[in-house]
Amino acid sequence: MKIGVLGGGQLGRMMALAGYPLGLQFRFFDKSAGAPASQVAEFHTGDFNDERAIECFAAGLDLVTYEFENVPSSAARFLSRRIGQFFPPPGALEMAQDRYVQKQFFQRLGVPTPLFQAVGTREELQQAVELTGFPAVLKTRRWGYDGKGQAVLREPSDLDRAWDSMGGTALILEGFVKFEREVSLIAVMSKSRASVFYPLTENRHREGILRVSLAPAQGIDPYVQLLAERYARSIFQELQYTGVLTIEFFYIDGKLLANEMATRVHNSGHWTIEGADTSQFENHLRAITDLPLGSTVARGASAMVNFIGSVPDISLVLSMPGAHLHLYGKAPRPGRKLGHVTLCAPDYGTLKKSLETLQNFADC
Amino acid sequence: MKIGVLGGGQLGRMMALAGYPLGLQFRFFDKSAGAPASQVAEFHTGDFNDERAIECFAAGLDLVTYEFENVPSSAARFLSRRIGQFFPPPGALEMAQDRYVQKQFFQRLGVPTPLFQAVGTREELQQAVELTGFPAVLKTRRWGYDGKGQAVLREPSDLDRAWDSMGGTALILEGFVKFEREVSLIAVMSKSRASVFYPLTENRHREGILRVSLAPAQGIDPYVQLLAERYARSIFQELQYTGVLTIEFFYIDGKLLANEMATRVHNSGHWTIEGADTSQFENHLRAITDLPLGSTVARGASAMVNFIGSVPDISLVLSMPGAHLHLYGKAPRPGRKLGHVTLCAPDYGTLKKSLETLQNFADC
Repeated sequence: MKIGVLGGGQLGRMMALAGYPLGLQFRFFDKSAGAPASQVAEFHTGDFNDERAIECFAAGLDLVTYEFENVPSSAARFLSRRIGQFFPPPGALEMAQDRYVQKQFFQRLGVPTPLFQAVGTREELQQAVELTGFPAVLKTRRWGYDGKGQAVLREPSDLDRAWDSMGGTALILEGFVKFEREVSLIAVMSKSRASVFYPLTENRHREGILRVSLAPAQGIDPYVQLLAERYARSIFQELQYTGVLTIEFFYIDGKLLANEMATRVHNSGHWTIEGADTSQFENHLRAITDLPLGSTVARGASAMVNFIGSVPDISLVLSMPGAHLHLYGKAPRPGRKLGHVTLCAPDYGTLKKSLETLQNFADC
Repeated sequence: MKIGVLGGGQLGRMMALAGYPLGLQFRFFDKSAGAPASQVAEFHTGDFNDERAIECFAAGLDLVTYEFENVPSSAARFLSRRIGQFFPPPGALEMAQDRYVQKQFFQRLGVPTPLFQAVGTREELQQAVELTGFPAVLKTRRWGYDGKGQAVLREPSDLDRAWDSMGGTALILEGFVKFEREVSLIAVMSKSRASVFYPLTENRHREGILRVSLAPAQGIDPYVQLLAERYARSIFQELQYTGVLTIEFFYIDGKLLANEMATRVHNSGHWTIEGADTSQFENHLRAITDLPLGSTVARGASAMVNFIGSVPDISLVLSMPGAHLHLYGKAPRPGRKLGHVTLCAPDYGTLKKSLETLQNFADC
């Protein structure tokens, strides 16, 4: 079975590496010729809006998925019609591409979410901040990732500056949540409507970029895990979803507030490659090819540390017990995710020591 | 770093999948265009004796290794001179290609081995059987694998028949060992002369083909493990070895008799992908690229079951807890290794039950 993947970044690369042992073959589509997946699989380079390039990509594929949420709806719809198998469904992709539509969707399903308001004009920004109060976060509704297209508003004088730099595109203002922790749920729904859920992962961001994930998140009431799973189930049902879905939450006072969702495998699920019985990548592929889903049980405690902008001395990384290295084959550039390491330990105490060792030579 | 691999079978395929996360790139060379590695990496098709094809393969490589022992010495020597980095060294490859030379080598190092004698003529066959007695095994000295090129001699009348079918090539007669079990050691030596050893694996063959490996082999005295490691160490030293080395032993009365060695990753080490902290494939690559070697500690108990000639219903395989599927992308053919599953369990009792379940729908 040949699977087409839109987007050829590290998520796609790791998906292919997980899929080969299942006997699957892959063809990627990306605008950058040297993208990480190009080193491990058949690769088409082109513009997502070039219908002929997409047509050529589609030839002979059995199924299409994506690893990149900024796929134009037209390409998704075209491939869905052409191949008949496009997962997660185009409707889910489109909904997730617009932060405002996404938050309205959460609201409609009864999934708690921070205060938010759509902002199209300077006047609407004023009205929105009256709803949310300070601080608040102004974001572009579309095409943002890793904290790009965001500005924190702390006082009235911040509004003009933010408007000057971001005004003119569709925006959303969100109330700033003084969360205790950020956690994410990686949830999987198969074509046969079987679902599995990984334990909640704790995520630490800096400058809008995920730095460290810890899994399973510690000190989380089992009720909260079940609550997160209930939210995922209602999203699955509403969207007729198939594949991996990631929901990022703010955790505050024992409650969850949905921050955003991604209709794809996710950086906060990388720990599952070695830290769980079955990886998010393998389970995504099992889900969309209608195979039985694999166990999501965590093996001890894991920490995933992203390498951003530079990669530490890999000899030092590999000399650490329980360290599993993942390089993406990318050239270094500031702010770029170049790889990650997952530290696996039998328990949290050991993991903490291992993280301290890593901090001696890696930024985490 | 770009690694050239001679041979493009499943061993090479799994090596590439283990090497990509280390940031390595691969180019394979094989005579068959559709070989398993061709689906996952850059691939050159050609004859190992075609110097121009080998020359073209070599261009731009940093290092060469192999996953197939029947590489002609001329190709190995040529690449070793051209690239300067060829591991395991050509001398080790050449020694391992001839069963007689290999057994003489074992004898010289004090590694116990069954009785053996070189056979070039019908008369020498007669003399050899007087040394070994019946039963004995007549084998071609070179180019045999998976039990091909072998005949068991049980009584004097078998000699003529065996000679008629095998005479004319260089042969070796070996005393037949009524072993209790077959075990193998996967040993790793890095460029920096660090070595690690996996726990002994128990192997069950049928019709000369490995069917099931169980790891760690049960009921083996720790002294026997150390003995096997001592043998490997002396081989490493004698051959100035770098990379993974596999030694197959007969286990009898608490002693080990070396049956044969392979200067490469090995089918009996496939369980290490999920069953050990670091796989044989990753450790081979770490060894030859001079990275620190990874832990060889086994995670619980594992059983590796080969799929030979046909693949069972993969939905049934994947619905088993702790089952990890590996398909090689090959077309079915009788006697062909098409894939394997590794069953992982916390202990041997659970593993045994899991194997019994697998036997309901797979040949093992």
